Amino acid sequence: MTLPPAPRCSFASDNFAGAHPRVLDAVVAANTGHVMAYGADVHTAECEARFRELFGPSAQTFLAFTGTGANVLALATMLKPAQAVVCTNWSHIAVDETGAPERILGAKLIDLPSVDGKLHPEQLDELSHLIGVIHHAQPGVVSLTQSTELGTLYTPDEVAALCETAHRLGMSVHVDGARIANAVAALGGTVAALRSLTVDAGVDVLSFGGTKNGLLGGEAVVYLNSEMATVAPFVRKQVTQLASKMRFVAAQFNALLDDGLWIELATHANEMAALLHRRTVDLDGVELGALPRVNSLFPRLPAAAIEPLREWCFFWDWEVSTHQVRWMTAWDTTVDDVEVFAEGVAKILATCN
Amino acid sequence: MTLPPAPRCSFASDNFAGAHPRVLDAVVAANTGHVMAYGADVHTAECEARFRELFGPSAQTFLAFTGTGANVLALATMLKPAQAVVCTNWSHIAVDETGAPERILGAKLIDLPSVDGKLHPEQLDELSHLIGVIHHAQPGVVSLTQSTELGTLYTPDEVAALCETAHRLGMSVHVDGARIANAVAALGGTVAALRSLTVDAGVDVLSFGGTKNGLLGGEAVVYLNSEMATVAPFVRKQVTQLASKMRFVAAQFNALLDDGLWIELATHANEMAALLHRRTVDLDGVELGALPRVNSLFPRLPAAAIEPLREWCFFWDWEVSTHQVRWMTAWDTTVDDVEVFAEGVAKILATCN
Amino acid sequence: MTLPPAPRCSFASDNFAGAHPRVLDAVVAANTGHVMAYGADVHTAECEARFRELFGPSAQTFLAFTGTGANVLALATMLKPAQAVVCTNWSHIAVDETGAPERILGAKLIDLPSVDGKLHPEQLDELSHLIGVIHHAQPGVVSLTQSTELGTLYTPDEVAALCETAHRLGMSVHVDGARIANAVAALGGTVAALRSLTVDAGVDVLSFGGTKNGLLGGEAVVYLNSEMATVAPFVRKQVTQLASKMRFVAAQFNALLDDGLWIELATHANEMAALLHRRTVDLDGVELGALPRVNSLFPRLPAAAIEPLREWCFFWDWEVSTHQVRWMTAWDTTVDDVEVFAEGVAKILATCN
Amino acid sequence: MTLPPAPRCSFASDNFAGAHPRVLDAVVAANTGHVMAYGADVHTAECEARFRELFGPSAQTFLAFTGTGANVLALATMLKPAQAVVCTNWSHIAVDETGAPERILGAKLIDLPSVDGKLHPEQLDELSHLIGVIHHAQPGVVSLTQSTELGTLYTPDEVAALCETAHRLGMSVHVDGARIANAVAALGGTVAALRSLTVDAGVDVLSFGGTKNGLLGGEAVVYLNSEMATVAPFVRKQVTQLASKMRFVAAQFNALLDDGLWIELATHANEMAALLHRRTVDLDGVELGALPRVNSLFPRLPAAAIEPLREWCFFWDWEVSTHQVRWMTAWDTTVDDVEVFAEGVAKILATCN
Repeated sequence: MTLPPAPRCSFASDNFAGAHPRVLDAVVAANTGHVMAYGADVHTAECEARFRELFGPSAQTFLAFTGTGANVLALATMLKPAQAVVCTNWSHIAVDETGAPERILGAKLIDLPSVDGKLHPEQLDELSHLIGVIHHAQPGVVSLTQSTELGTLYTPDEVAALCETAHRLGMSVHVDGARIANAVAALGGTVAALRSLTVDAGVDVLSFGGTKNGLLGGEAVVYLNSEMATVAPFVRKQVTQLASKMRFVAAQFNALLDDGLWIELATHANEMAALLHRRTVDLDGVELGALPRVNSLFPRLPAAAIEPLREWCFFWDWEVSTHQVRWMTAWDTTVDDVEVFAEGVAKILATCN
Repeated sequence: MTLPPAPRCSFASDNFAGAHPRVLDAVVAANTGHVMAYGADVHTAECEARFRELFGPSAQTFLAFTGTGANVLALATMLKPAQAVVCTNWSHIAVDETGAPERILGAKLIDLPSVDGKLHPEQLDELSHLIGVIHHAQPGVVSLTQSTELGTLYTPDEVAALCETAHRLGMSVHVDGARIANAVAALGGTVAALRSLTVDAGVDVLSFGGTKNGLLGGEAVVYLNSEMATVAPFVRKQVTQLASKMRFVAAQFNALLDDGLWIELATHANEMAALLHRRTVDLDGVELGALPRVNSLFPRLPAAAIEPLREWCFFWDWEVSTHQVRWMTAWDTTVDDVEVFAEGVAKILATCN
Repeated sequence: MTLPPAPRCSFASDNFAGAHPRVLDAVVAANTGHVMAYGADVHTAECEARFRELFGPSAQTFLAFTGTGANVLALATMLKPAQAVVCTNWSHIAVDETGAPERILGAKLIDLPSVDGKLHPEQLDELSHLIGVIHHAQPGVVSLTQSTELGTLYTPDEVAALCETAHRLGMSVHVDGARIANAVAALGGTVAALRSLTVDAGVDVLSFGGTKNGLLGGEAVVYLNSEMATVAPFVRKQVTQLASKMRFVAAQFNALLDDGLWIELATHANEMAALLHRRTVDLDGVELGALPRVNSLFPRLPAAAIEPLREWCFFWDWEVSTHQVRWMTAWDTTVDDVEVFAEGVAKILATCN
Repeated sequence: MTLPPAPRCSFASDNFAGAHPRVLDAVVAANTGHVMAYGADVHTAECEARFRELFGPSAQTFLAFTGTGANVLALATMLKPAQAVVCTNWSHIAVDETGAPERILGAKLIDLPSVDGKLHPEQLDELSHLIGVIHHAQPGVVSLTQSTELGTLYTPDEVAALCETAHRLGMSVHVDGARIANAVAALGGTVAALRSLTVDAGVDVLSFGGTKNGLLGGEAVVYLNSEMATVAPFVRKQVTQLASKMRFVAAQFNALLDDGLWIELATHANEMAALLHRRTVDLDGVELGALPRVNSLFPRLPAAAIEPLREWCFFWDWEVSTHQVRWMTAWDTTVDDVEVFAEGVAKILATCN
């Protein structure tokens, strides 16, 4: 078997990608002598203004380093004593943050089973029996992931229904939007779509992802419910997410939010996943679900194909026991990368059949 | 009074400075398509190797985002249940981290009084009465700051004596080296000096600062006692200090550690502080102590001079009640900046006398 | 419908019962002037010796106030940084402790699904994929409940198999034995049975329940793995479980452990549950499972019967949606209580059919 | 030297004493078959009513096991994220609770220096520079101890002034009243005195001690600011302070609060300390301060006298380096105990001079 040269891009994760040139340029441009530290600089002020443009004048934004850091910051300001966070059993906060929420929040995560990575309002109602009973951690915050860890999407109506139920039950709503841009791209690719999924739906606090969408590194916690932001300036420092040279995080976001770059990059990543789906869905031995909505596919492959394919071009396992893997595209995945990768998949599969 | 145009650099803090051009260049150079995330990349491997060159082959290095994050990571891996951290009442961990250690470590900080920002072995011995008594948090880790928050330095012998005492009492030793480069610069400016202050003295874990010495942002936790590093990979993620695109932190350090840039920059900052001391020590109304060892001065000024001077060129108060302020130089402070600033000080003081 | 007078005892919980007279007598007898506080007294020394008699000469015992307190103390001394506790989705620590473990331990609980309240070795093996992966809290301690929250029992072999698997995977084993006495009573009613379920099976730390078995209030954390006990004296105070007048907790245990009273009381409670089963299993409308092994039954009843029955003699719901309730006997439940209760059940059911 | 037989009581601590007979009788009397667990019983209802009689109709009371537990419960419900507790460097929470507050609250304790064990309003005002600065844990709760760890007392006016200052600065006020009864006894011995020191002075939450004043074991957290009590039912369980058989804690308090027993016992303990002062103050070699207000004395003794005296009748060191010890009386210390102890002190001192 002769394989083509591996694609320039892996299909492992959007965090394998580098930074978009305009993001890097903005960092370089921000490197102009002394400015106030800890966010009292013009770049951060601009960044905060840009987020107010997206979400409305009362939105308050706090930049952070990582998705885990952003989530912990958000939740730490939302939780009251003895409260728990409700999420799915797939959620990043429950599975992929090494217990950071439990350690730093000192709070239980109630991880509800989900087949599609999404929470449903009935599941919140079913927690009612916990409320007011002193032996149970009290459901206090619902945390949804948009787009989900399984590549699915909440519609605006679904988010609104969850918010309505949560608020009725006395809970507030957090969205882990590490890939919120991909969700927005999939649901219209407009600021109106972003708002329909967040502020208009009643979301209280949003982790707005940047790292996976072309930054060197940076996330933003956006308080749509500004009351919850009161303690955020202190809590951000306390949970180790306060950058001293914050201009360099802010400048990245300013480039990303400028002229719709964030939607453009996410749209592209989504399209590359769709292209990869089209190129591989009919291959013998590949079991793929429906066309992906965002930038990830979860194919089942013949067991014998996985390691040769991975050695040629890296990706991660998803469920080892069922030979399911994850292919993920990024802002910088090219059509050529996809074509080459699909060609390699086809060739390797051919040797397995 | 006619003041000259303000200096290009403030004298507020070394974290008001930007990044050194070679650091930025390294970040740009590292932006080459896909690499493994979370540190499994060549830049991080190089960085770890560079730290082994500095500290010896068993040193293990974990990059982090901030000084607070690095300190919390270090301490979280060093503490055992019911133990406390011993530090001074000036220490950054006790005063300037918004309670991050208490929140994330769940541990008490025993902050001993100090006039010079330094701990002394007798103070550790005086804690012996706590040891083994079940009603008291057990002294488990000594954390010293080098250079200290007051701009003073521990000599290698002093660090060794503290380590010897701490180890004899069953405690381990952490050094908060947010400005370790300035200390090394002041004590010889060589790798040998660095080692004499750390690994040779018996230090267990070091927070090695980068942000204040010319990085965009980045710190390193260096385990000289490699046994304590066992859980560090997990704890780093848990305390929100794991970068997904770690190459961009590593590349910064690689530039900083290359060809002694880190010592060069710190030496320069120290020299600028010394120059500022020489230019202002004899001014009427300025009370300055001895020539600074590192990059900070703590002058007392006439009350009336402080606000005009600050409006012209920013710096922070140190002790409001005694009209003491802090002037700090950075890697990018120029001789011209110092001359202009000293001239401004002189002019403003003249109007106050 | 004419109901007989309600039984003297409810069938709600073994913690609705009072203290056994010999326990109270022992408390009164211990009230003899001044003794050393915090456990340095003869009653506590005797108690520790009694536990060494049960578990062997290296067992170390630390008295505590509540089951939650005992569990938290045990786990706090067993966990290392970034580790998680593995338990079932029914476990008291996961469901009924208001998030105390997460708050005080700062650790995730991995609550595995279970139909019978028990963990199985395969479930531990299935966690292997988490081990060594930095994004996941590391399985560190397995906590089983004996007898379980569902009234089931682990056999000695099952405990041994779990310990073997856990230790092989680098985990330690905690047993929440809030009702360990009921388990021992069911599995032979001897000290040998106790040992076969704990120290001989390889259990590291045991929460040995007292409150539910005739004490005023008191639990014991028994370290079978004495290495883990090193920090327990300090951690017990830190987690608020250190009694100053400990003699009064110790004296209770001394009475309970004397002359096999603890087995006698648990055996009786178990027998009363068995009697209740026999008296109600054939009633029309009662769905009962097999003969209970310990002191709880989980009947399904006609919906209309539940409230009238509860008003007459209190008990708790178990699963509201399926009309399942819990009936629990205690050390002081009498044959007469059971006969009267069964009579009332029959009468109320008769009116529902 | 021939010493008399040692006194029946040590002079070590009020927690070396047993329980008052009426307290024990109440526990025995409460042992009447089944009652609802977790405080839904008549004894607890009566106890809550008794505390409302003391503090007014909106006071809410939550029983707990230990002083540390009560303090942690109180503070956990008072603190907001990123806040700190302000106390003295002598305070029990800072010194004698093995870091329980830091671990369970995740909060910093700002322990201000104090020569008399008391906080002063100016000290709170001096913390103003921390308020609103994101690098510092925010002073959120002031915790005073009444009577203090040094045996001193706050007057009602002093408490009111602290409350006024604290509230003006946005802080709430907790009183650690492990020995509040001794303080009340010293300041009039009436319910009016109790109210003047607490609810009338503006205190928000009080830890009301029972164990040191004749209980087997039991403390009460009394919310005078009922808004702060909202989460207390949940937090009490979460911090492991919820008794299942709560009637046995409540019954103890009911006996203690009945007919002024709590004041009677504390008054007696105070008087015994005063008597001991009178009997020893003029002895050669004893350095005693002024007549004690409550039940502790802090004499300096000749070094050679301490061990022989302690071997004869136990007490604790206070400050080893200055040969200062603590003598403490209890509710059950008799005049005869004091006379015998004073005689022994005199004899032993005679041999040292």
